[in-house]
Amino acid sequence: MSRVRVHNFSISLDGFATGDEQTLEAPFGHAGSRLTEWFTGTRTFREMIGASGGSLGVDDALAGCWGPGIGAEIMGRHKFGPQRGPWTDEEWRGWWGDNPPFHTPVFVLTHHPRPSIEMKGGTTFHFLDASPAEALRQAREAAGGLDVRIGGGPTTVREFLANDLIDFMHLTVVPIVLGRGVRLWDGLEGLEERFAIESTTTPSGVTHLSFERVSAS
Amino acid sequence: MSRVRVHNFSISLDGFATGDEQTLEAPFGHAGSRLTEWFTGTRTFREMIGASGGSLGVDDALAGCWGPGIGAEIMGRHKFGPQRGPWTDEEWRGWWGDNPPFHTPVFVLTHHPRPSIEMKGGTTFHFLDASPAEALRQAREAAGGLDVRIGGGPTTVREFLANDLIDFMHLTVVPIVLGRGVRLWDGLEGLEERFAIESTTTPSGVTHLSFERVSAS
Repeated sequence: MSRVRVHNFSISLDGFATGDEQTLEAPFGHAGSRLTEWFTGTRTFREMIGASGGSLGVDDALAGCWGPGIGAEIMGRHKFGPQRGPWTDEEWRGWWGDNPPFHTPVFVLTHHPRPSIEMKGGTTFHFLDASPAEALRQAREAAGGLDVRIGGGPTTVREFLANDLIDFMHLTVVPIVLGRGVRLWDGLEGLEERFAIESTTTPSGVTHLSFERVSAS
Repeated sequence: MSRVRVHNFSISLDGFATGDEQTLEAPFGHAGSRLTEWFTGTRTFREMIGASGGSLGVDDALAGCWGPGIGAEIMGRHKFGPQRGPWTDEEWRGWWGDNPPFHTPVFVLTHHPRPSIEMKGGTTFHFLDASPAEALRQAREAAGGLDVRIGGGPTTVREFLANDLIDFMHLTVVPIVLGRGVRLWDGLEGLEERFAIESTTTPSGVTHLSFERVSAS
């Protein structure tokens, strides 16, 4: 059975995975770039955006686990874009330019479906108004036996965790206090009972946690 | 100037430093012993309760910084006991028996002051209805030039942080999701700007963070 994985999911000490006030210019709201700085300096990220260079080391090693073995992604609408409510036009094609870094089918959860968008490089955005289980069923079918990544944001990851649909999760705790935004942990009391958890702090100052599910769903 | 320090202050991944439903039998409420297990196995803790043995290593090294240089402690009433409202009797003398591990004056913040209690071993409990700054003034006077420890719980630590009265804080993040209780982080947005922060994960699975203040108050 293919696995359902979360990677490079950054949260603040107070558990916010994105800040308040998302806009076109600020995908993470008032958090700005603070949650992702550990990541954007790595070789993995540089390759994702078609650039060279970037740091090697432990942060990069963990970041690089993002891609291999993944055949589809599921993301929430607010990872796809800052719009709320019905689409006023269909020009928005995500934050990532013509050739997004996914290179697989990507299922965007939204209460306002729209026609699929085929991008360069193998990424196709599909828009789904579906439960986590139903979205996963479709993503698994599209993934052709490979794993499915839950790409965020926090509401989407939380819903998949609450429905016990996540097999592996790599979180990164950044030592900042955001104070407001969208929390990951709400409603997940006792989550640790379902996972074997490892932690490692890296010299960049962040702490990576891996959650690997111990019981079959 | 003496410093104001927090030590061995454990929180869950979701930022709760104590659980819900504190009782006489459950000082940490539904969290039980899960927040403090990393600590109660150390030599430092064993010595605090008059026992021998206990683990050495990194957890113990950090735990052991609790005592040296401290001349007084300030704690919230719910660290002292589970009672709420006016004291119905004055028999309660804390959770720690006749010879508490503090061995200094201890100032208990409460809206219901009562006469001081002199215990064995140098601990005297004083009961104060005072602001953080005023409590600190009195504790500093009692500490005779030594440092003052803010002993918890979360409401007390949070108030001292909000008033920028903490010079050093050792937190321990335990990889559990408590879901409910009393949060440390509420209202502390941007806290990291006032501190140099270090993190280290130990083989027991917890992550220790030290916050050292970078700007004078």
